[in-house]
Amino acid sequence: MDEVQEMLRYAFQTKNRLTIPVSGTGSAGMEAALANFIEPGDHVLIGVIGYFGERMVDMAGRYGAIVDRIAVPWGQVLDLAEVEQALSKQSYKMLAIVHGETSSGALQPNIPDFAKAAHKHGALLVLDTVATLGGVPVETDTWDVDVAFSGSQKALSASPGLAPITVGARAEEMLTKRKTQVGSWYLSLREVQKYWGKERTYHHTAPIQLNYALHEALRLVVEEGLEARFYRHQENAEQLWKGLEELDMELLVKREHRLATVSSVKVPPSASHDKVKNHLLEDFGIEVGAGLGPLKGQIWRIGLMGHSSQRKYVSLVLAALREILAAG
Amino acid sequence: MDEVQEMLRYAFQTKNRLTIPVSGTGSAGMEAALANFIEPGDHVLIGVIGYFGERMVDMAGRYGAIVDRIAVPWGQVLDLAEVEQALSKQSYKMLAIVHGETSSGALQPNIPDFAKAAHKHGALLVLDTVATLGGVPVETDTWDVDVAFSGSQKALSASPGLAPITVGARAEEMLTKRKTQVGSWYLSLREVQKYWGKERTYHHTAPIQLNYALHEALRLVVEEGLEARFYRHQENAEQLWKGLEELDMELLVKREHRLATVSSVKVPPSASHDKVKNHLLEDFGIEVGAGLGPLKGQIWRIGLMGHSSQRKYVSLVLAALREILAAG
Repeated sequence: MDEVQEMLRYAFQTKNRLTIPVSGTGSAGMEAALANFIEPGDHVLIGVIGYFGERMVDMAGRYGAIVDRIAVPWGQVLDLAEVEQALSKQSYKMLAIVHGETSSGALQPNIPDFAKAAHKHGALLVLDTVATLGGVPVETDTWDVDVAFSGSQKALSASPGLAPITVGARAEEMLTKRKTQVGSWYLSLREVQKYWGKERTYHHTAPIQLNYALHEALRLVVEEGLEARFYRHQENAEQLWKGLEELDMELLVKREHRLATVSSVKVPPSASHDKVKNHLLEDFGIEVGAGLGPLKGQIWRIGLMGHSSQRKYVSLVLAALREILAAG
Repeated sequence: MDEVQEMLRYAFQTKNRLTIPVSGTGSAGMEAALANFIEPGDHVLIGVIGYFGERMVDMAGRYGAIVDRIAVPWGQVLDLAEVEQALSKQSYKMLAIVHGETSSGALQPNIPDFAKAAHKHGALLVLDTVATLGGVPVETDTWDVDVAFSGSQKALSASPGLAPITVGARAEEMLTKRKTQVGSWYLSLREVQKYWGKERTYHHTAPIQLNYALHEALRLVVEEGLEARFYRHQENAEQLWKGLEELDMELLVKREHRLATVSSVKVPPSASHDKVKNHLLEDFGIEVGAGLGPLKGQIWRIGLMGHSSQRKYVSLVLAALREILAAG
């Protein structure tokens, strides 16, 4: 358990004491990151650049927050000035944003500036790193992010079912100063962290095989090294983008905001979203993500995460798309 | 997924459509069983016969319930007449009780009568079967239990991390008639059940390896058959009780209320709770549970659950205790 924590700190690039895997999938980590810091009536500001920003809006409301949202069309990213303006107009408990939006393939830049803006106005910065941790730089301490959460099964390539979370000193202090109990018992970090502390105080039965799987996945992250890992993800993503463009396919997200772990490519007018998706799966063993929400039927999402970010897979998916689209 | 549901229905002895594993450990199942049916301001009545009854009191309060509790000393069980009296004095949304209390080793009898009493007064019966499902008869439909939940790692002997839950028609209807959203997004069954339905609508990434593990564990339950399984658990427990009595050790729970899956035995005045516990683990590879709460240091809890309910383990733990206690 100590090693899991130590390696998670390495992945998050943090010294945060409270760095643990939550016993649930990434969405449980998202809920923990919101529920532990929201008290009924708190104002929170949520940046929505896709599906998972909307999910945070839903969750925060369930915990009694008064939610304001700043949304942009899926595929685009938040504008810092607009968020700063919103922060100056209302006293928010937190600003929650998504680092890598799985639903669109967009990577939110300028995280340190969002952190600075949030802190200037007395708000925490909560960051969804589900699609980035272990694949794209996440510098929790340098960027001064208060709470970051992720999932075990994406760029960390462990089994699904755990949600790494890290909580900085500013946010951890808020856990002890709450006037009300955390709305969820299962996700209440004050109690969960005692299990990960010296006393190993029982809270709930740990999904222990998953914790072992995460340990091994993190060991591989350490063995490869974060820098090499980020380079690999970026290289393979760029090869994919280049290949897609050579196939005259259009990417949804403009170059400077593209996420290396998930690439969203537009369905050509001549092709059927579902047919190509099924063809890829049945004949090539490649599962691409469907378009969600407003992008339903309009994009395919190609994941190159963790173990699956390999040059040979880039070549294979490009060859497969070439064949399928040529066949019409 | 369909097979997991079908085999869970077999284990719960139910035809309930909404029968699924929640993506969290038993406590997440408990929280789902409460959170989905409680709206802020609802009155709920909780029977407390040990640690896990107290946990339900804590959780229900977090979801805004006004909680009344009926408690008995740990090791004893609820008195039906007392619960009926409480139900007649206040309009409760639910009565939540524990079938097998892991912390004390007590089995609550008369579940059908508690169900009848709850229904007579318009309340749901929520039943904690964490320590009983797959080891002791749980007859959801015959007993007319509205909501029952369990854990994957006890008498079902799968990996920890999943919480089977079953919801009857009366309770399922309440899900659609709520005036407020369920407090927890992650545990909201209306959304989760769509993933288990025909459309397989994405809600959260399933902890898929755990679902496969549960499938295999349930397959073994079906292969053995519930009746044979219950007989095995009861037989081995009775052998253990007989052996403990032959060692002049005293059981906490009186015979007619003993739980076959967990037996609590009093620490003799001459012995040290911790020393014997450590000795069992280090020299015999046997981990017994510590006494919790008011029973801290006073009992050991011996589990004979699922795969571990074997005659040879009964013989081993008795031989080990004999040796350790004789050595003093």
